[in-house]
Amino acid sequence: MDDIRIKEVGSFHIGGRKATLAGLPKYQAQIAQNAPPREVDPNGEFWVEQMYAQYIKLAEPKSKYPILFWHGGGLTGACWETTPDGREGWQMYFLRQGYDVYVSDAVERGRASWARYPEIFATEPVFRPYEQAWELFRLGKKYHSDPDKREVFAGVRFPTNLFDKLMMQAVPRWSSNNAATQRAYDEYVEKAGPCIIIVHSQGGAFAAQAAINNPDKVKALVFIEPTGAPAAKKEDLRKIAHIPHLYLWGDYLDQSPYWSTRPEAAATSYYLGVDKYRRALEVEGVDVTWFVLPETGIYGNTHAIYQDSNSNEIASAVDSWLTEKGLK
Amino acid sequence: MDDIRIKEVGSFHIGGRKATLAGLPKYQAQIAQNAPPREVDPNGEFWVEQMYAQYIKLAEPKSKYPILFWHGGGLTGACWETTPDGREGWQMYFLRQGYDVYVSDAVERGRASWARYPEIFATEPVFRPYEQAWELFRLGKKYHSDPDKREVFAGVRFPTNLFDKLMMQAVPRWSSNNAATQRAYDEYVEKAGPCIIIVHSQGGAFAAQAAINNPDKVKALVFIEPTGAPAAKKEDLRKIAHIPHLYLWGDYLDQSPYWSTRPEAAATSYYLGVDKYRRALEVEGVDVTWFVLPETGIYGNTHAIYQDSNSNEIASAVDSWLTEKGLK
Repeated sequence: MDDIRIKEVGSFHIGGRKATLAGLPKYQAQIAQNAPPREVDPNGEFWVEQMYAQYIKLAEPKSKYPILFWHGGGLTGACWETTPDGREGWQMYFLRQGYDVYVSDAVERGRASWARYPEIFATEPVFRPYEQAWELFRLGKKYHSDPDKREVFAGVRFPTNLFDKLMMQAVPRWSSNNAATQRAYDEYVEKAGPCIIIVHSQGGAFAAQAAINNPDKVKALVFIEPTGAPAAKKEDLRKIAHIPHLYLWGDYLDQSPYWSTRPEAAATSYYLGVDKYRRALEVEGVDVTWFVLPETGIYGNTHAIYQDSNSNEIASAVDSWLTEKGLK
Repeated sequence: MDDIRIKEVGSFHIGGRKATLAGLPKYQAQIAQNAPPREVDPNGEFWVEQMYAQYIKLAEPKSKYPILFWHGGGLTGACWETTPDGREGWQMYFLRQGYDVYVSDAVERGRASWARYPEIFATEPVFRPYEQAWELFRLGKKYHSDPDKREVFAGVRFPTNLFDKLMMQAVPRWSSNNAATQRAYDEYVEKAGPCIIIVHSQGGAFAAQAAINNPDKVKALVFIEPTGAPAAKKEDLRKIAHIPHLYLWGDYLDQSPYWSTRPEAAATSYYLGVDKYRRALEVEGVDVTWFVLPETGIYGNTHAIYQDSNSNEIASAVDSWLTEKGLK
């Protein structure tokens, strides 16, 4: 493939606040390897609730705006880089198409760091096991520790033999940091300036809210199977009436209680919650593209559409949509 | 500045193992925002003790080997990117000088993820407060919450008014993961192939051991104020006799019990521990360059030499040293 010409690679942390801990007991611990033990005082000041973003700026971008990639729950920005089967991820794909790219780690994830609980973060973190990820990502019907005994969906486009590679990307998450995460994302959008957001899963609700909070900065929203949407009022939705929305949904939706499109799944289905938000957007005249891949003849996609074997094909469709909307 | 031509940006996770948890109670939690609550089962399989690395490969590298940047304790690979005062960090500096670069997050840090404790990681994590970082990084004599009341070292080259930016990079660490961290680093060196390692602080002992474990892969070691060294036997040191070692030390060493060069500080000084290792290396004929910056007229450097205001000047000296050693 062709080389790409880069102006700069860099990163920053943004958002958060200073927190102070006091009254916790001191103790002795050997912190550095083969070094003298020393007293550890857990009290003091800490920066908390910040997030991290890395940018790669092209020498000559073709798009009007950079793309900000926002990961989903239990993941970090690493999910947008090399795919589990070793191909270039969406970060590289969109760089090659002429977009500057930003890849971030939300509050509590990856390089954003996390804070002591329950003193600063209110709850315990949640670690997602293989079994649950298998189901949530719709890789197959039944998970089994023995790869040979796993029931894989017919035609599935995720390299299920490399499921470990996805699980190596997994990080813990908290259920109590939504407000802090939103604040940091809002500051991030302010700093990045006019931008396109491509967002996966749990990030969807944050991105939709970020657009409401910064309607002049967010120029387009591309949602990959979001798990939720803001509890937004009509006047909020009117603020974002000029922002085109693209929603991408994979295959096997009705084989999962988390994703089922059937009305009887309303209590558990993320899909149906977001579908309701979509209808509210449309009432306010928002330009929404609702792209259920199997309805257009693209079969086999999982929740990790951007890591599936046809990731470039889907990325190309997103690039075309952005071009149609006048953003490139 | 000139553009740089890139062949590829990518990343991978490496190392670690699958762990299984059982017998922990299930509970209900609202995991995704504005989405239905669901049962959380903390039991199951998890990948643990992996590490993360991102690489940037040049279209036409000038050096024979890539540089692997290894962060210190309580930090992630982000420390090598943009400096706190917004200049290009060593990642970009060495890219511009023609080296392919890898920037990693060690086991338990950043995008490497971390595992539940005490079930998988044996101990609690340690969070470094502002006060301790101020002292360990040798920014000044006495820390104070009020920036105007902080006693800053005269001529200090770290932008102390931007100390928050360093603290935003801070992540927790464990004292019980040394063996797992070393295993992952060794696998990483195997995968990266022949390489130069530039390493900071806590990473120093891991890098020195990685060279002993993979003496054909590690072509040079550049230590920035390491906090420790392997407990190595003579036969181990003979294995690495062909690998040039460069040690960089900043200013104000004798004003800190962690870094003092005075014999009476032996019980607390990381410097003296590493100095002992240096002498053992020299007995075995290893080519060691011991570069105490103020002894050569370069004053004001802190523990974060690669983030200090003269970071490019020091990077240039490292580049020259690597060139002299025939690695470029």
